[in-house]
Amino acid sequence: MTRTSLDHHNCSFARALELIGDRWSLMIIRDAFYGIRRFSDFKQRLGITQAVLSSRLADLIAHDILSKGPSSHGSGHEEYRLTDRGRDLFPVVISLMQWGDRWIHGQSGPPIIVTEKNSHEPIDPVIVSSRGKALSPKDLSYEPGAGASAETLAFLQKRGHS
Amino acid sequence: MTRTSLDHHNCSFARALELIGDRWSLMIIRDAFYGIRRFSDFKQRLGITQAVLSSRLADLIAHDILSKGPSSHGSGHEEYRLTDRGRDLFPVVISLMQWGDRWIHGQSGPPIIVTEKNSHEPIDPVIVSSRGKALSPKDLSYEPGAGASAETLAFLQKRGHS
Repeated sequence: MTRTSLDHHNCSFARALELIGDRWSLMIIRDAFYGIRRFSDFKQRLGITQAVLSSRLADLIAHDILSKGPSSHGSGHEEYRLTDRGRDLFPVVISLMQWGDRWIHGQSGPPIIVTEKNSHEPIDPVIVSSRGKALSPKDLSYEPGAGASAETLAFLQKRGHS
Repeated sequence: MTRTSLDHHNCSFARALELIGDRWSLMIIRDAFYGIRRFSDFKQRLGITQAVLSSRLADLIAHDILSKGPSSHGSGHEEYRLTDRGRDLFPVVISLMQWGDRWIHGQSGPPIIVTEKNSHEPIDPVIVSSRGKALSPKDLSYEPGAGASAETLAFLQKRGHS
């Protein structure tokens, strides 16, 4: 597939995909949430070539999703860690995992159960809410923000959302 | 990029990416949440070729994310609508959009503000929680589920998560 740039889109979703919407990048981010830190561990987990992994890690560092530095255990290994910006993808990763649990592994049961560490209680399903009340897609309205382009304004008007 | 299959992975996240982790598929899903229904409207919004759009729509129908049927307005146009399975991607789409709002459009302000339709209140930030209490990545533990493969069990043991 040609990787047409989504950079010019006046949309947070499109721009976010431009940074992380590559399937290997997302798999690396998932593994970083599992606590994977070393190149060799990412490589073994993902089963991808050294070249592809190097390229994706470099992109993720360039986009400030991961940072690279010496091991905190003093082992001399370099480690890749989520930055604040990367760590803030937490609800994206967990909600996609939960969707797969429901719609792909519904019959077999999930491979992994995500729990709260101390209580061992399974975590809640991630929801969209307003003032704590769960919302469905039809409860939403889309309004122009400060960063809206003329094209976005026209789109929202046409769709009757604003 | 070679689209190596993630089908064999014993992981809800990887399997979900196999179904929707293509950037155009995700952009189509985003537009479906905005209420886009017609082929010509998707094509205009996304600026992609007829061939790429047709192929992605066919994939999304095959994966039961979208369904295709006659227009509810009796216009004779075919419409593409989110299925229950597709609509359940709601928190994934909204959380990725919110991430872009915070980390990409933080200075200009978001292009689009998502509000609750009746109150016009902005929606809450999507969070990961347990019994309603917000969690961060370090609060989680990963435990083997009913669908765990031998490989997943070994991985969780090695990481000390189970």
